[in-house]
Amino acid sequence: MKNINKINNIKIIPLGGLGEIGKNITAIEYGEEIIIIDCGFTFPDSEMYGIDIVIPDVKYLVDNKEKIKGFFITHGHEDHIGALPYVLQQINFPVYGTQLTMALVESKLIEHKMLDICELNVINPNDILQIGDLKVEFIRTNHSIADSCSIAIHTPLGIIFHTGDFKIDFTPIDGKIIDLARYAELGKKGVLLLMADSTNAINPGYTMSEMTVGETLNNLFGKCTGRVIVATFASNIHRLQQIINSSQKYGRKIAFSGRSMERISEIAINLGYLTIPEGTLIDLKDIKLYNNNKITIVTTGSQGEPMAALTRIAASSHRSINIEKDDTVIISATPIPGNQKPVSKVINDLTRKGANVIYKSIEEIHVSGHACQEELKLIHSLLKPKFFMPIHGETKHLIQHGKIAEEMGLNKSNIFIIENGDILNLTKKSARVTGKVHSGKILIDGSGIGDVGNVVLRDRKYLSQDGIITIVVVIDRESQAILSGPDVVTRGFIYVRESEELVKDIRFVANKTIEKCINSDITQWSQIKRNMRNDISFFIYGKTKRNPMIIPIIMEV
Amino acid sequence: MKNINKINNIKIIPLGGLGEIGKNITAIEYGEEIIIIDCGFTFPDSEMYGIDIVIPDVKYLVDNKEKIKGFFITHGHEDHIGALPYVLQQINFPVYGTQLTMALVESKLIEHKMLDICELNVINPNDILQIGDLKVEFIRTNHSIADSCSIAIHTPLGIIFHTGDFKIDFTPIDGKIIDLARYAELGKKGVLLLMADSTNAINPGYTMSEMTVGETLNNLFGKCTGRVIVATFASNIHRLQQIINSSQKYGRKIAFSGRSMERISEIAINLGYLTIPEGTLIDLKDIKLYNNNKITIVTTGSQGEPMAALTRIAASSHRSINIEKDDTVIISATPIPGNQKPVSKVINDLTRKGANVIYKSIEEIHVSGHACQEELKLIHSLLKPKFFMPIHGETKHLIQHGKIAEEMGLNKSNIFIIENGDILNLTKKSARVTGKVHSGKILIDGSGIGDVGNVVLRDRKYLSQDGIITIVVVIDRESQAILSGPDVVTRGFIYVRESEELVKDIRFVANKTIEKCINSDITQWSQIKRNMRNDISFFIYGKTKRNPMIIPIIMEV
Repeated sequence: MKNINKINNIKIIPLGGLGEIGKNITAIEYGEEIIIIDCGFTFPDSEMYGIDIVIPDVKYLVDNKEKIKGFFITHGHEDHIGALPYVLQQINFPVYGTQLTMALVESKLIEHKMLDICELNVINPNDILQIGDLKVEFIRTNHSIADSCSIAIHTPLGIIFHTGDFKIDFTPIDGKIIDLARYAELGKKGVLLLMADSTNAINPGYTMSEMTVGETLNNLFGKCTGRVIVATFASNIHRLQQIINSSQKYGRKIAFSGRSMERISEIAINLGYLTIPEGTLIDLKDIKLYNNNKITIVTTGSQGEPMAALTRIAASSHRSINIEKDDTVIISATPIPGNQKPVSKVINDLTRKGANVIYKSIEEIHVSGHACQEELKLIHSLLKPKFFMPIHGETKHLIQHGKIAEEMGLNKSNIFIIENGDILNLTKKSARVTGKVHSGKILIDGSGIGDVGNVVLRDRKYLSQDGIITIVVVIDRESQAILSGPDVVTRGFIYVRESEELVKDIRFVANKTIEKCINSDITQWSQIKRNMRNDISFFIYGKTKRNPMIIPIIMEV
Repeated sequence: MKNINKINNIKIIPLGGLGEIGKNITAIEYGEEIIIIDCGFTFPDSEMYGIDIVIPDVKYLVDNKEKIKGFFITHGHEDHIGALPYVLQQINFPVYGTQLTMALVESKLIEHKMLDICELNVINPNDILQIGDLKVEFIRTNHSIADSCSIAIHTPLGIIFHTGDFKIDFTPIDGKIIDLARYAELGKKGVLLLMADSTNAINPGYTMSEMTVGETLNNLFGKCTGRVIVATFASNIHRLQQIINSSQKYGRKIAFSGRSMERISEIAINLGYLTIPEGTLIDLKDIKLYNNNKITIVTTGSQGEPMAALTRIAASSHRSINIEKDDTVIISATPIPGNQKPVSKVINDLTRKGANVIYKSIEEIHVSGHACQEELKLIHSLLKPKFFMPIHGETKHLIQHGKIAEEMGLNKSNIFIIENGDILNLTKKSARVTGKVHSGKILIDGSGIGDVGNVVLRDRKYLSQDGIITIVVVIDRESQAILSGPDVVTRGFIYVRESEELVKDIRFVANKTIEKCINSDITQWSQIKRNMRNDISFFIYGKTKRNPMIIPIIMEV
């Protein structure tokens, strides 16, 4: 007989996804077992120059490796699976998820040449897995990607319910409605803690059904006389299906453009998540074989990403697509915060080239994948949790979701707005924050994991503002005479051909400083360099009101 | 008798404000006369590293200096007056505008120490100035700054009507409603060309009256038990007045925080645009003398600008304001595109510190200053122009405004969606684009005007991505032996203390390249440097998948 009944507490430790959108990962620790829900990345913010992606710091999990039972993934979006290739390198444990989710994880691991060393397990919604002393149940939900699940963890202390990302869609494209009955059942059994998606907690009302987008698409397709180019998220399989349906209705062939669009549509077709009638799918290079009014192109770039297909089309740098006068471009997405300007640029560029561009402000060609306030209330009312912890959101979203829970009658002291790394410690009857574990961001730049830190980022920012000036001088070790230089090399500071005078002046200042140092018996190179930096910096600021980085280099021979 | 009747055409030459938001400036050229409307700057886009502001390139005006009659300013926003200190240095001609507008221009010229060399003329709305053969009429309009005007230029060929930025507000705070009667009168006389603000042309319906914000503010103030901190645009005098009114209603003292807030409120109070009851205005340093529920602080930073007061309050780096538990922060503005993330960060930081933060998604505490579609239709219906040219907007806004004009019955061939620099040539009966003049952006960085060009910007971007590696080597001129180095200095590439191995390898690669060159009788430094750059770049990319800038420097002694 195990000592299962002696364990009277359970720890919830979010390591990402709180106080931020993305990088979702939560550890649930019961005795000697840790269940990990999701393992995503986030995109760098604008101050993180040169960084490709940001993943969660999982030191706590590495330190508690022996307890880990596996990764349980709610759905296949990057902010839920994207960090797996990096994290699995440190803690390699089985990964569980639905078919489409696992297919996307698989494709990711193949890219990182890691598939053969990882264990992937496909589960079905409604499956309940016995994991050590715990039961992990996947429950169907709706979201902007097919095959999304909430996860309920049955513990001897009660049910821990994690919604994953979700919305309530009564008319989803695949007919698979969120399993509200099971939510209600679990609510009756007694939910100890609810963790729920807060992304849209600020937005009143309901998120519209995905189906409404199909109606708008049909209307638009009906009016188009030339090609239709639709940009959307590659992973939004239901959106792709609706674009295919509208195309078929109007006798259009479909071509996919963009690497992730090609990759994900292929996976979705192979697994039967995407249905394309025989002969409808054509290769992008064959679009010229058909009349313009018989062509639909589905492309990446709905967020104005610099290298994505639509951005290249807008910039006239796409290999096989040039905008023509009767093209209609539909941007079936809304810009996520931070992307408004690049998306606007794409719209303007396409418009200027003569395309008729349809975007969210003009037609309802997008719906969110996240629950708005009334949907959140429905979920709260079904699950009736004892304790509540809003997840997946910036602080403002979490706070707002907390207010909703309060309006629903939950006591404020039972609502926990916490931060990444906080330990929420639950017993059958109580919950409180009992400490903090190490958590943070790991920056990925090229193939380097975490080797770019604050010093490097600060330098990149500094360099980006006013550039760099390098001053090199060769000095004789014995006589301390200047043998060569000072030579001045600048980058990102000023256009040198037009500023020869300034460069000459910098050389002069450097010379003077070195002479002064030597004459005052300052012989430490570090001191001479410091003086050079100060004098040149002062001189340049006076002349230009700029602060370039200044690097003096002294070479001894 | 002048040959005025022989001039049968008039040229409209926008030099800024088309295909962009900001940097508004338009030249209207009739025979030997040029009238300039507005002279604004815009903010750099995210790729313009280190640039402070962007002003229009006015080479065309400099080349045609002898024709210029003056600058006619519609209102005092930076995107309409901000380039004056730079442009007046090149073409110093009289500036005309309403009282508040000219006070703001004056304050700007004082800052640039230029006031004594410039001629500023205060006019009243309804004034008609005889400028050479033309009459320039200022007509009152509504906007998010007091004292805004449209401008009608009476020419022998017909009226050229420029709306400036505007909205229609039937209940403006100062009671001064847009002079629709005069619009109608001019429409009856016959408007040859209408140029109208397109900023909100994508938005259906009407922009709400500024007064509605006052009602929301009153409601909010009624509920606040601690301090109220309101962030808004300093130039939105009417908003300031409403904040003052609400404060007074609830017996609160007012303190201003932020340099532009202090500067502009002082100007507005002195000129009587802002009415503050005796004893209500207090100094920021005195807020501690009153109970929290008797204090309103009005601050800059509604756009999350890094150095603005609210941003510093949020980051706990403001000298005299720390967030306390019962503070209410009202952000009475919406983020302009590109600022969503910084504004969100400010909201999250304030929320985390315990403030109750009210922003546009939660309460209606802001209205736009620009006309929406139905207002634009009203203006079109009153002015009934023969030709129409949408202005003030990105391409997508201009196109949408063009569609509105078409819906209003204007022939498509009478609508001109043109670009900065295009010459729209009008006769009494015709209009067409007859050519293009030089136009463009001048980047201001520190005290430099236009000395940062594409090469410098490209380098700054490059530097910001993966940093820079400088490799210095000293070579004997005679023997070609390496006397010192190669030494490696990196910035923004990698944290060197943790990567000594890599730096050693780079030195090794550099050494090998130099030796190989010398052994193969390559003696041209430029060739050796090119080889070093290539070899090191290849090596580093292989090791790190990064592309830092590589600068080899060879010093001869």
